[in-house]
Amino acid sequence: MTRRRPAIQHPFPDPVYLETVLKPVFEQAAKHLFQPLIEINLAHAEMLEQCGILKKLHSSKIRKALTRLCLDRDKLGSRGYAGEEEDLYFYVEKQLAGLCGADISGHLSVARSRNDVDIALYRMVLRSEILETSNRVRQLRSAVLSLAGRHLDSIFPVVTHTQPAQPSTMAHYLLAVCEFLERDQARLKHAFEITNQSPLGACVATTTGFSIDRTLMASLLGFDRVLENAYGCIAATDYVLEATGAIQTMMIHLGRVVQDFLVWSTPDSGLLRLPDGFVQCSSIMPQKRNPVALEHLRVLASLAVGHCQTVAAALHNTPFGDIVDAEDDLQPAVRSVFSYSSRVLELLTAVLETAEFQVEKARIKCQSGETTLTELADTLVRQHGLPFRTAHQITSRIAKRLRMSPQRRKGETPFEKISVLLEEISGSVTGDSLRIPPQQVERILDPVHFVKIRRIFGGPAPPTVKRSLKTRQRNLEQDRLWLAKRLKQMKQYQRKLFERGSRPRGDI
Amino acid sequence: MTRRRPAIQHPFPDPVYLETVLKPVFEQAAKHLFQPLIEINLAHAEMLEQCGILKKLHSSKIRKALTRLCLDRDKLGSRGYAGEEEDLYFYVEKQLAGLCGADISGHLSVARSRNDVDIALYRMVLRSEILETSNRVRQLRSAVLSLAGRHLDSIFPVVTHTQPAQPSTMAHYLLAVCEFLERDQARLKHAFEITNQSPLGACVATTTGFSIDRTLMASLLGFDRVLENAYGCIAATDYVLEATGAIQTMMIHLGRVVQDFLVWSTPDSGLLRLPDGFVQCSSIMPQKRNPVALEHLRVLASLAVGHCQTVAAALHNTPFGDIVDAEDDLQPAVRSVFSYSSRVLELLTAVLETAEFQVEKARIKCQSGETTLTELADTLVRQHGLPFRTAHQITSRIAKRLRMSPQRRKGETPFEKISVLLEEISGSVTGDSLRIPPQQVERILDPVHFVKIRRIFGGPAPPTVKRSLKTRQRNLEQDRLWLAKRLKQMKQYQRKLFERGSRPRGDI
Amino acid sequence: MTRRRPAIQHPFPDPVYLETVLKPVFEQAAKHLFQPLIEINLAHAEMLEQCGILKKLHSSKIRKALTRLCLDRDKLGSRGYAGEEEDLYFYVEKQLAGLCGADISGHLSVARSRNDVDIALYRMVLRSEILETSNRVRQLRSAVLSLAGRHLDSIFPVVTHTQPAQPSTMAHYLLAVCEFLERDQARLKHAFEITNQSPLGACVATTTGFSIDRTLMASLLGFDRVLENAYGCIAATDYVLEATGAIQTMMIHLGRVVQDFLVWSTPDSGLLRLPDGFVQCSSIMPQKRNPVALEHLRVLASLAVGHCQTVAAALHNTPFGDIVDAEDDLQPAVRSVFSYSSRVLELLTAVLETAEFQVEKARIKCQSGETTLTELADTLVRQHGLPFRTAHQITSRIAKRLRMSPQRRKGETPFEKISVLLEEISGSVTGDSLRIPPQQVERILDPVHFVKIRRIFGGPAPPTVKRSLKTRQRNLEQDRLWLAKRLKQMKQYQRKLFERGSRPRGDI
Amino acid sequence: MTRRRPAIQHPFPDPVYLETVLKPVFEQAAKHLFQPLIEINLAHAEMLEQCGILKKLHSSKIRKALTRLCLDRDKLGSRGYAGEEEDLYFYVEKQLAGLCGADISGHLSVARSRNDVDIALYRMVLRSEILETSNRVRQLRSAVLSLAGRHLDSIFPVVTHTQPAQPSTMAHYLLAVCEFLERDQARLKHAFEITNQSPLGACVATTTGFSIDRTLMASLLGFDRVLENAYGCIAATDYVLEATGAIQTMMIHLGRVVQDFLVWSTPDSGLLRLPDGFVQCSSIMPQKRNPVALEHLRVLASLAVGHCQTVAAALHNTPFGDIVDAEDDLQPAVRSVFSYSSRVLELLTAVLETAEFQVEKARIKCQSGETTLTELADTLVRQHGLPFRTAHQITSRIAKRLRMSPQRRKGETPFEKISVLLEEISGSVTGDSLRIPPQQVERILDPVHFVKIRRIFGGPAPPTVKRSLKTRQRNLEQDRLWLAKRLKQMKQYQRKLFERGSRPRGDI
Repeated sequence: MTRRRPAIQHPFPDPVYLETVLKPVFEQAAKHLFQPLIEINLAHAEMLEQCGILKKLHSSKIRKALTRLCLDRDKLGSRGYAGEEEDLYFYVEKQLAGLCGADISGHLSVARSRNDVDIALYRMVLRSEILETSNRVRQLRSAVLSLAGRHLDSIFPVVTHTQPAQPSTMAHYLLAVCEFLERDQARLKHAFEITNQSPLGACVATTTGFSIDRTLMASLLGFDRVLENAYGCIAATDYVLEATGAIQTMMIHLGRVVQDFLVWSTPDSGLLRLPDGFVQCSSIMPQKRNPVALEHLRVLASLAVGHCQTVAAALHNTPFGDIVDAEDDLQPAVRSVFSYSSRVLELLTAVLETAEFQVEKARIKCQSGETTLTELADTLVRQHGLPFRTAHQITSRIAKRLRMSPQRRKGETPFEKISVLLEEISGSVTGDSLRIPPQQVERILDPVHFVKIRRIFGGPAPPTVKRSLKTRQRNLEQDRLWLAKRLKQMKQYQRKLFERGSRPRGDI
Repeated sequence: MTRRRPAIQHPFPDPVYLETVLKPVFEQAAKHLFQPLIEINLAHAEMLEQCGILKKLHSSKIRKALTRLCLDRDKLGSRGYAGEEEDLYFYVEKQLAGLCGADISGHLSVARSRNDVDIALYRMVLRSEILETSNRVRQLRSAVLSLAGRHLDSIFPVVTHTQPAQPSTMAHYLLAVCEFLERDQARLKHAFEITNQSPLGACVATTTGFSIDRTLMASLLGFDRVLENAYGCIAATDYVLEATGAIQTMMIHLGRVVQDFLVWSTPDSGLLRLPDGFVQCSSIMPQKRNPVALEHLRVLASLAVGHCQTVAAALHNTPFGDIVDAEDDLQPAVRSVFSYSSRVLELLTAVLETAEFQVEKARIKCQSGETTLTELADTLVRQHGLPFRTAHQITSRIAKRLRMSPQRRKGETPFEKISVLLEEISGSVTGDSLRIPPQQVERILDPVHFVKIRRIFGGPAPPTVKRSLKTRQRNLEQDRLWLAKRLKQMKQYQRKLFERGSRPRGDI
Repeated sequence: MTRRRPAIQHPFPDPVYLETVLKPVFEQAAKHLFQPLIEINLAHAEMLEQCGILKKLHSSKIRKALTRLCLDRDKLGSRGYAGEEEDLYFYVEKQLAGLCGADISGHLSVARSRNDVDIALYRMVLRSEILETSNRVRQLRSAVLSLAGRHLDSIFPVVTHTQPAQPSTMAHYLLAVCEFLERDQARLKHAFEITNQSPLGACVATTTGFSIDRTLMASLLGFDRVLENAYGCIAATDYVLEATGAIQTMMIHLGRVVQDFLVWSTPDSGLLRLPDGFVQCSSIMPQKRNPVALEHLRVLASLAVGHCQTVAAALHNTPFGDIVDAEDDLQPAVRSVFSYSSRVLELLTAVLETAEFQVEKARIKCQSGETTLTELADTLVRQHGLPFRTAHQITSRIAKRLRMSPQRRKGETPFEKISVLLEEISGSVTGDSLRIPPQQVERILDPVHFVKIRRIFGGPAPPTVKRSLKTRQRNLEQDRLWLAKRLKQMKQYQRKLFERGSRPRGDI
Repeated sequence: MTRRRPAIQHPFPDPVYLETVLKPVFEQAAKHLFQPLIEINLAHAEMLEQCGILKKLHSSKIRKALTRLCLDRDKLGSRGYAGEEEDLYFYVEKQLAGLCGADISGHLSVARSRNDVDIALYRMVLRSEILETSNRVRQLRSAVLSLAGRHLDSIFPVVTHTQPAQPSTMAHYLLAVCEFLERDQARLKHAFEITNQSPLGACVATTTGFSIDRTLMASLLGFDRVLENAYGCIAATDYVLEATGAIQTMMIHLGRVVQDFLVWSTPDSGLLRLPDGFVQCSSIMPQKRNPVALEHLRVLASLAVGHCQTVAAALHNTPFGDIVDAEDDLQPAVRSVFSYSSRVLELLTAVLETAEFQVEKARIKCQSGETTLTELADTLVRQHGLPFRTAHQITSRIAKRLRMSPQRRKGETPFEKISVLLEEISGSVTGDSLRIPPQQVERILDPVHFVKIRRIFGGPAPPTVKRSLKTRQRNLEQDRLWLAKRLKQMKQYQRKLFERGSRPRGDI
């Protein structure tokens, strides 16, 4: 039980430090940061050469060695970390020295430090994750819009405070989802722009006395611009808080939609039917059809939110400077934010592409007349000039009477009964009996009619929703173009970097 | 000990419900929502009139009554809540009926519901808070820039990982703060734009069959535009998550700066001296001068962060629809986010306006030569063409030797010693002894020189920082103009609304 | 728009510091800490006297003055805070000096400091809140048990993963709630014991050179024991984290129960009906009956959870020592934890005392035979010796067939159909046709039978649940006794303190 | 860019569901739950046999197959998950059928379900983690006590609000740490007891109609007792919230100690020196010695806290029942809580075993006389009968004068100066000049004297601390015994289970 460690002092690294810090950090870095680290090295060599700080010949050899190192990346994964090099940065430096000689590779360390390189790595991984996530949001929006397009006329009971409130359409609900996803994508876009700024050249925190070209360095690596203040480059972490904050807002909102879907999947509600691919059966109860994909969506979204708050917790009450807290140890939490939210987006898209809304059941729930009573009140206002509050009072009493004594005379339709009640109650409320014939009552209380006349901007009437749908599609297309441009930009800088790396200009 | 409640059923409201829900909600609403509620009523009356739904005469009477009600708002505060009205909405409705008769006031309830009105109220309060906070951020930026302007040449030791790293200037550090505050203000601006959209006309969640004018309604109340989908209007809460998320990011960052200030205020460091106005003495230790304002800043920022997470917790795993959770009960948490962050911004601004940086102490800390050793390595690269890694190795050994045997021969200056060590160590490392005369070593290791040559974009050299300062001032001025425009817009719609309210067109 | 503060240095307190720190802190302290502060002063005087450090006469005068001060506490509330005294501690000191002369009152400040006094105050307020909360938990448990007692035989469909799973009873579900509430109460009890330890005598953090009696001091103030290490007394905050952690766990769990109640309150489910006292109607939809008390319970519990996390956020990454963060500014967050959780407990108790479970509806949901199919599989194991997995396979196929082709031959009962299917399917699965006659199938699938035979420890069979109920009642009674003892202890020390305060022994 | 998924319906599992849910869940389960799952199967076979539900021969064959399966566990790790079995539960069931025939293995599925088995698995993993963590806490306490034992006389300046306050000893500070760790261990112990209760036999949520023996089942698996209510068994999650809550409290507190260590490691303070094994150098600044182990401790503790809040977030606002959220997906977050906190405990223990407190530097910081001025005030009270407030006023003025005009007459000692100031100032304050000769002033202000006379319970005087140390050691020994007993209990049930598994009684 007692691992009795004699209190001897070890040279660096202490075995406990190796196990609890260096090893997990190295493994994490090897998994995510190797490729961008090679890229930074390539760009640094090229920039130093163009600024006349590194000889062409040296630059050429270094870049060839880096390209080769990148091809051998599998080696990295297979070897266990044993602490020979402190971290990935020094591992690459050592490999490079092995390939082209320390006399040459040693020239690459000028005018930079682990500080600016590390932050650049984190930003490069993060910008990719933001773009990938944006792409998944785009796919989800596309699935939602396509579903909405199929349900423009599907009557559906809006629920407020757990109770059916008014009829609307499935498409109207889905466009509400699509609208907030547009805003989520805008937030991710802004986060991308904040992230895609280059800290390189900040070195430790004060730049360098060498005349390097920060702008060139940034452009070689696909950054949009240089982040100015060198101290801020290594100290500020709002880029990661903004990105994870955008994810948190999206996950909380999608989680809310999932809550609705979960209720709709209960047999009591029955509005939503998941296809077999997403339904697990019970190990013991033969009759069950568990729509667990939805439960997984809820908890995966919760975990994404939890990891966002973990990122905040790690940065809270730390100094404003180059600190460990904002670096290696934080990265797994950031990775988790994106891997969990990706699982949510991907799974929800797949579910929505095949889920079936039980349109008929939804319509029947709106048929009772209860959810359309507002329209009766509105009609009293429109046709009879009653103040709304009075009209509301009359219909409230009708609703109460219907609930208290639901039975009808033989052969009496519900609309006849309402017509009679209206006459009686309006008389007692206003002193003036109002009469609306049963057929008209039927039309007023028809949920299709209810939806059809709600045609102002943002309303559920099918033509209105169709117009909204077009706006949503236009916005989706614009975001798709933005995204395509960004993804192309990412591919291009990489291609150019490696092309030039393997065939530097000086060679020809 | 036992309050034995007989389990009788009460009519609405049950006394426990009144105490635990209605009363705290009413008190909160009376404090924050009364004025915007009157404004919404005024705008609704005007819009209904212009759309031909409300008669001019009725509209005129209603708006006069509303104006009078607004003047009497003190009444509201003084009366204890006893549950006669369910909430503020019905309280105002009742007062209005008292002033101009239910026959007239009852017409105002058409084509709206508590749902869209409530969300509009929350957005109106929030947009004011965002603007006020933006204004405080502006003041803080102004204080930071003014302080930076006074410390362009104040040498100051950059600390990384708790250890002095390199010299920079106080102004360089402060501009890093100012840069992230610019990004904070941009986030607040975006949050304002997301918030300042009108949900009015969404009614319950499906708009209305009346031909109302949502655009007019929005513009009467100073909203920038109409939020489209009616369901989304009442269900989506990303506007509040984006706003509180922006605050959370800012508070975490300012908290990090405060952590630095706290360390600088220890007698051991002594870099920062708070004026007497912010220093508390001890009840028992006569010698103490506690810079507790800084500790309060830390905890107030933490509490602001905590309240941001409370807002997220309240919305997490709720349905996507009109729910209580996103409404009245959430508001106190949102108010707390802004009141705590305002206290932080205001107090930090006041502290920075009068705090004294101990410039001389800071300079002395950079004098030892240790923090400028990088420059010696850089010089070996620049002048002697060594690979940086080799130069670093040489200076590392010099640093180790200085630390191990700090004593010097009598009369020997530190620079002479370094010159000698350099010759010896460079010989053993490269096989080729390098010599830099003591005077040159002194110049190389001079912190002022160190800072002066770091003049690339984003560096600490005073002329470079001066240029950065101008950029920051220009950006501040732009944000000031944006803010002034927004504040003016807020005042104008109010003035117009009340002017027209008391003197409706129809009267003349 | 610009409040242009000239950067002049103020003597303490700077007006901004007064507004943003001293004033809110004083108001909070005046509201919650005044009475315990008087008590600490009384106990300190008595202890000093008994230890021979304070003269009897001085002690007597001081204690009379304190008692009078306590009676005049209304004065405190009415006056606005203007910064004359730094805080409540000095306010009381000054008032005391006014009443009995600084020459005498000045003797009271020996052998203590604001540090130990403040922590003692926080612990005193917290222990009261823990006891009050425990009392509310007790009331809730009592309400739950009483409800369970009325529903021993109420059949009810257990839902797993949103789908009906098996029949149980309402009482069985409610006892699960009661069991975790027992554990919540145990956690609160432990938190009370950690909290009710006296830090007094720790002074600044090192005790004092005077021979004071810490044990006497603790016992005079109703503390159970002295907290030993003086540094720990003023630095450790696990007492507050344990207490708020206990609340957080309880709130999350009660929130989960509330989620169930919310689903049960949908018209689709209809299992739960809230009485009118807890139901709000709509401002616009006359038919609605919103069980908003449940929604308020959800969000109030969420807010309680949020405030618990705020307390943690405020302490996170602060130094371990006497710091502002753990003190005045933290208190409002702690108060919020308890006020929100109290609202939850009180409201939920009231709701459960009058809520009506729709027993008949619940029973019908279990009638379909689907949820009892496990029992058919069990019977095949018990009576026919099939391996369970084989029996499960057979019943699964029966379930599938029933779902696929639900229609029955004319006059055929469902049980006849199942009997036929069983014969057919068991033949094809095992090669050996099993026959169970329809009447027996009916009995096997009867939900009442299902529940009745589940009589092992912890099962839902009414006699088993009755035994569990007795255990729960016994545990409740024990906790009631513990609580009564603790509340009495609190009253007694106060009574004695004030009695002796107004008629000190030396007087007679 | 566009993965265009045709919206076809897949049989279970949909490929997206397989990738986003089943696969990560299976891999996590294979890593942590395989061994306990075999154990539960073994115990279930034995219990069913003893209750006469499973034939001896069948039981014997099943248990032999399980034992063999356990030995082959490496197979599990190497195979990629391809979705043939839904989860680990069915994987084991299938393997078992392969080894001893489905006819026999199928009998094992009676009287249980995945629900109770899964919760039992989670509790079994968690109880091990709690014991391992407790063991690490024990080691840390041991290291702290051993360090304290070496620093009983090491004078050290207590800091409050960033300023030196009073002298104490290093041992006194460390015992404060040890005291809260005792409470942390007590919380973990309580969490263990809540966790180590058996849900087995709860089956789906209603137990079973078979007469199984839940008590036997519990004892075979090393559980302390049976968790009663079957619904609660599968729905309640307070066990995991209590365990992670205990960790959160501990991590926040250790994080506070780490904050102190970080400040003590700055060159300005210099109180703490980390050995080389924990210090990283800079890639670019040759002079740096970064005590980054401490920074890693801070962030690792923060991440542990973050994961605790993630667990809470995942359970927040979910239904109270068998839900996915509390199950597989939650487990990685729970694992992270324990792996991060273990890293913190292990690394901090290693650091404390070798860290060096710079005793001499600490003593010098207390030498100035400033931090002992309280004692001068106390002396005026003790010897001259002044009220403390008056004595405090006199010494405050002395302190101010010393700070304002620190210069002394030639040859004048600081104590002579204080003696003179005392005479002058006491005269002006009280009208009666008090004189304390310089030698006595020196003794009064001596930090060693200051500490020595603070000998009451909990004070820093070395003999007092020695007594406290003994208490702490006694408590540590008691906790060690508890832990040893628990660990033995865990080993014993496993040994017995596998012994009987491979050589069941019936065989001989």
